[in-house]
Amino acid sequence: MNPYQTLQETCYEANMQLQALGLVIYTFGNVSAVDRNAGVFAIKPSGVPYEVLKPEDIVILDFDNNIIQGSKRPSSDTKTHALLYKTWDEIGGIAHTHATYSVAWAQAQRDIPILGTTHADHLTTDIPCARPMEDHLIEGNYEHNTGIQILDCFKERGLSCKEVEMILIGNHGPFTWGKDAAKAVYNSKVLEAIAQMAFLTFQINPDAPRLKDALIRKHYERKHGENAYYGQ
Amino acid sequence: MNPYQTLQETCYEANMQLQALGLVIYTFGNVSAVDRNAGVFAIKPSGVPYEVLKPEDIVILDFDNNIIQGSKRPSSDTKTHALLYKTWDEIGGIAHTHATYSVAWAQAQRDIPILGTTHADHLTTDIPCARPMEDHLIEGNYEHNTGIQILDCFKERGLSCKEVEMILIGNHGPFTWGKDAAKAVYNSKVLEAIAQMAFLTFQINPDAPRLKDALIRKHYERKHGENAYYGQ
Amino acid sequence: MNPYQTLQETCYEANMQLQALGLVIYTFGNVSAVDRNAGVFAIKPSGVPYEVLKPEDIVILDFDNNIIQGSKRPSSDTKTHALLYKTWDEIGGIAHTHATYSVAWAQAQRDIPILGTTHADHLTTDIPCARPMEDHLIEGNYEHNTGIQILDCFKERGLSCKEVEMILIGNHGPFTWGKDAAKAVYNSKVLEAIAQMAFLTFQINPDAPRLKDALIRKHYERKHGENAYYGQ
Amino acid sequence: MNPYQTLQETCYEANMQLQALGLVIYTFGNVSAVDRNAGVFAIKPSGVPYEVLKPEDIVILDFDNNIIQGSKRPSSDTKTHALLYKTWDEIGGIAHTHATYSVAWAQAQRDIPILGTTHADHLTTDIPCARPMEDHLIEGNYEHNTGIQILDCFKERGLSCKEVEMILIGNHGPFTWGKDAAKAVYNSKVLEAIAQMAFLTFQINPDAPRLKDALIRKHYERKHGENAYYGQ
Repeated sequence: MNPYQTLQETCYEANMQLQALGLVIYTFGNVSAVDRNAGVFAIKPSGVPYEVLKPEDIVILDFDNNIIQGSKRPSSDTKTHALLYKTWDEIGGIAHTHATYSVAWAQAQRDIPILGTTHADHLTTDIPCARPMEDHLIEGNYEHNTGIQILDCFKERGLSCKEVEMILIGNHGPFTWGKDAAKAVYNSKVLEAIAQMAFLTFQINPDAPRLKDALIRKHYERKHGENAYYGQ
Repeated sequence: MNPYQTLQETCYEANMQLQALGLVIYTFGNVSAVDRNAGVFAIKPSGVPYEVLKPEDIVILDFDNNIIQGSKRPSSDTKTHALLYKTWDEIGGIAHTHATYSVAWAQAQRDIPILGTTHADHLTTDIPCARPMEDHLIEGNYEHNTGIQILDCFKERGLSCKEVEMILIGNHGPFTWGKDAAKAVYNSKVLEAIAQMAFLTFQINPDAPRLKDALIRKHYERKHGENAYYGQ
Repeated sequence: MNPYQTLQETCYEANMQLQALGLVIYTFGNVSAVDRNAGVFAIKPSGVPYEVLKPEDIVILDFDNNIIQGSKRPSSDTKTHALLYKTWDEIGGIAHTHATYSVAWAQAQRDIPILGTTHADHLTTDIPCARPMEDHLIEGNYEHNTGIQILDCFKERGLSCKEVEMILIGNHGPFTWGKDAAKAVYNSKVLEAIAQMAFLTFQINPDAPRLKDALIRKHYERKHGENAYYGQ
Repeated sequence: MNPYQTLQETCYEANMQLQALGLVIYTFGNVSAVDRNAGVFAIKPSGVPYEVLKPEDIVILDFDNNIIQGSKRPSSDTKTHALLYKTWDEIGGIAHTHATYSVAWAQAQRDIPILGTTHADHLTTDIPCARPMEDHLIEGNYEHNTGIQILDCFKERGLSCKEVEMILIGNHGPFTWGKDAAKAVYNSKVLEAIAQMAFLTFQINPDAPRLKDALIRKHYERKHGENAYYGQ
């Protein structure tokens, strides 16, 4: 009897989605899913190709990175996931990819400005790009510090993890999250689409203006506000 | 006995085409189809993934946005569709997407200049990009006002909805239409192709000239003129 | 007994390849195949979608544009094909597309410079872009004059249709040809790849130099020279 | 009894992967695999389409380019492969493609700067672009001299073939290698992804900085260092 079977399957499905959506090649990404009652999360094992990945390969850990179940080594980014789960009670899933356009903005060390309603349908601010980490943090507990880097960026800018479910790590790539693993993967895809559109927009018009406030509010409200009328 | 079954199936097929043609991810788009005799139109329900969408989910409304049949909430853009059907007798279908290159031009707030025969095969003018809406209209009846925005743009520029079957809404994305829903979807795909070609053209030659008048006339006439000789 | 069955099938297969290779959407392209002994060529009917196209729909014409067999109207570009077959004895197939990167260079009215060995493996010169047609020719026998435009461009530049099997028509798109219809389609795909690579090269380095003469000669010779050693 | 059957199958599979990964059109690429004990390598026959390629078509040669088994002519790039195997004992497979973004950088005659962790996960230096060959070498033993060009570039820059498993040949395209043929193909795909990301990065920010040293070391070490903790 495996108490984590459902959690493993949820995590497995979300990881497979990453590949089906064209967001990863080889093993360049990972998704995790949390079980708040059990105080654990499930994450992809490190370096296992999607073609051979099985639900039972998914590793179960607590928020202090102790392996609770699983014979495989967890994703090398596990400590980043753990810290986010430990700090942000509200989130249920996290995804990390090296998707092309998202990485390009991260390597350019630029926030993605809010330029249109596709962006405003999902968040009301620019998509933050965290500054590259300081050297002594890189040489220390690197993946844990990547989590710190994300939390610090959100603190400095006064962002909420419930309203902004995505970030770019300068020179690295995107992390996204959400109420569950499927939503985290959805946000990775949306971020990639927004990143491509923003790249193209500035190619066509280098002076393209930020979206006006009234449109930002309107589009966000109709999907996420108190009187939201998008969806069923 | 369902009097709208055929209309629902037509609308369903057109919505599924949008996805098959690579014009939408998730639920970022919608297509409607009109029945002029019955005075109603059919439209995609809001936020329902294409993977689970069924013909019977399609919502039927009259041109004043009253739901005639269907238990689901219609697309959040429904009022835009309704106003266009009410005002433009000639059209039989409308499509809205967030296709990548079309959105990029919309976010750049630029008309797409007519640069070649691919464009001239379909229309003789630049593809208009409507100015972003004024704040008091956004805060009012937003989706209805998006329809007004389209109608105003066509009036100001002296365009006919029979000759120009597409528009970009500044900072938002494309709306296209046609004699039926399938033609509206076709126009969304054509617009996306023209938008990509125009983007690339200006990257290669920022001073690329507009297509000369004689070629505009020739290509449009051979497909749409009195003595058209394209097609069967 | 249909004397043109083989020719129709050859032409049909080549047209279907155009779509399989991602070079056309809808009906934005056409391929023809010649039978020199019979003095006829086969071409796609105008505006017939690939999904419903059948070998028996292919139209047979002589080099003066008389329909020899077929109940459908031939491609609107038929007169261009006819003139090329009539003038250039050496060619056995012709393809025309609106492929994205090829059209972008045509709309930019720029020759595609020879920048690398992918290009030199196929031809030793820049890919010519013919100037847009003069107005009185457009208003006259347009598609026949497109053929003239191609022939004039080759004459002015001293090009041979055996050595250079592709051209861009300014503001329109590519025409390619070869010893048979399959080779013409192959050349359309190769042109599209070269066009994309050249676009990207100049984005990375606006001063990218032309390929040096020794490399042009070497790569062309090893595939097409007297002592060619490429292939079986 | 065919002593090279396993080697041929390994080489065949790697060549087919090249196509499955979207790195080649037609016959624009080749992969080889070595058997160090037998002192031979297997390589794709020249100009044979992937659709008809069979394991038994794979040609076996020694490191001096003598054909040991096979009735087909080997890839025209065979002498480049042979020289690399002869000089670099450590490598087990080599791949050559004309993949789009890799070729664009090669045609731009630019090294690909290390801009992010996707790059640093695989190598700690910029991806070298070898200068175009001198004329007398092109006119001489061209493919052998391409091997010399690669070896000279690595010598001049003090690079190791174990740490840097990829190079761009100016105006031509990429060569990659690795411990076996599958790894060489993997490196071709990774190089193409890095080349696309770097292109996009500079479009977004022409002044994008090189990745800082601490991050280069960290990412390379966690995958390839003594205490690597990536993978199983």
